[in-house]
Amino acid sequence: MKGTFITIEGPDGAGKSTAAAHIRDSLEARGIDCLLTREPGGSVIAEQIRSILLDPGNTAMDPVTEAILYAAARRQHLAEVVRPALESGRTVICDRFVDSSLAYQGIGRNLGFDLVWQINEPAIQDTMPDVTILVDIGEEEARRRVKARGVTDRFDLEDRMFRERVHQGFLETARRFPDRIAVIDGEQSEKQVAADSLRVLEQRGLLHGPRPEGTPRTTDRQD
Amino acid sequence: MKGTFITIEGPDGAGKSTAAAHIRDSLEARGIDCLLTREPGGSVIAEQIRSILLDPGNTAMDPVTEAILYAAARRQHLAEVVRPALESGRTVICDRFVDSSLAYQGIGRNLGFDLVWQINEPAIQDTMPDVTILVDIGEEEARRRVKARGVTDRFDLEDRMFRERVHQGFLETARRFPDRIAVIDGEQSEKQVAADSLRVLEQRGLLHGPRPEGTPRTTDRQD
Repeated sequence: MKGTFITIEGPDGAGKSTAAAHIRDSLEARGIDCLLTREPGGSVIAEQIRSILLDPGNTAMDPVTEAILYAAARRQHLAEVVRPALESGRTVICDRFVDSSLAYQGIGRNLGFDLVWQINEPAIQDTMPDVTILVDIGEEEARRRVKARGVTDRFDLEDRMFRERVHQGFLETARRFPDRIAVIDGEQSEKQVAADSLRVLEQRGLLHGPRPEGTPRTTDRQD
Repeated sequence: MKGTFITIEGPDGAGKSTAAAHIRDSLEARGIDCLLTREPGGSVIAEQIRSILLDPGNTAMDPVTEAILYAAARRQHLAEVVRPALESGRTVICDRFVDSSLAYQGIGRNLGFDLVWQINEPAIQDTMPDVTILVDIGEEEARRRVKARGVTDRFDLEDRMFRERVHQGFLETARRFPDRIAVIDGEQSEKQVAADSLRVLEQRGLLHGPRPEGTPRTTDRQD
């Protein structure tokens, strides 16, 4: 893979999409060709999978099935969208990736990190992000922001304990993958979140155009 | 799990459904309470997943996504249908299970046994079949029978080489799991296939009513 793979993670309401757009704009201003995407991101098959996951009528969904379906949508989005862009040397900025599954299904649904990692490993194989920006936000502030949007899906109906477990789950991903994941305070202004995100990319040498061929990708894996 | 879990496997056209119905009838005639099912088997969510898999328009389906989606449908069918029946002591006869994924996706799609097993392991966990009857049939005879049915889905459009790989894949499952899988000649009469299947169950002590509590289940795992 010639391109750089950046993922943005955090609870709903953290400001991930805004941060991702800021990053895209800043990289493009430096002449770096970017693809901003989010799962299921324009893959028809991944959208079909997502609609099963978000259907409020699917109350019989087994939590392991849920984690497997997210892995399937992830794989299809990787195959159709992310990998072709990385192979052509573009920088891919993806709003949510495997850490969302670790937080929501692993900790939120109590499946555990190891099982959710085991489910996702064959879906992802060697396409792990070079860097992940975790936009952290407390449960109360996140709930306030999500409520203000007024849209409801199956996850919005979850209770406060679930949301708090998800928040802790995201912090746990940062402890498990310290080399890959940088935590940003999402309760700051949008401008400050964007500035902090860019500083992370700068520290990792990702603001200076395409990586020369042959340069190793940083990876850290939970084994 | 108190009940016995029997799976019937083989290529399309092998006569699995007929054999499964014969087995059910023979067991019930002996007073054994049976559930005859097949994936996705009456689970609404598993049906939704299946419709994505069989949609002839989904030509962009990545082969790993396909294997993951089968594992998701399998998990949901296990959670909603198979495990509750086994827990209540019923004998479950399931038309297709993990060996179909090993044959179709592992060998037919060239993903390899190990990757397909890795994908299915978290979906299945400890609910492996006690015994599997593989109804074997050559590629030509299978194609002749399927053609006579006149229904078409995405898999019916596959070429002869794919079907031959699937056939070899099923034979490979029997070599990998010799304690669990018994191979029956599917080119015999339906009556003979049923008689052979019952002999397999008899040899394993499965024709004599519910297993006494505490009796160990036979398992063999590919490790």
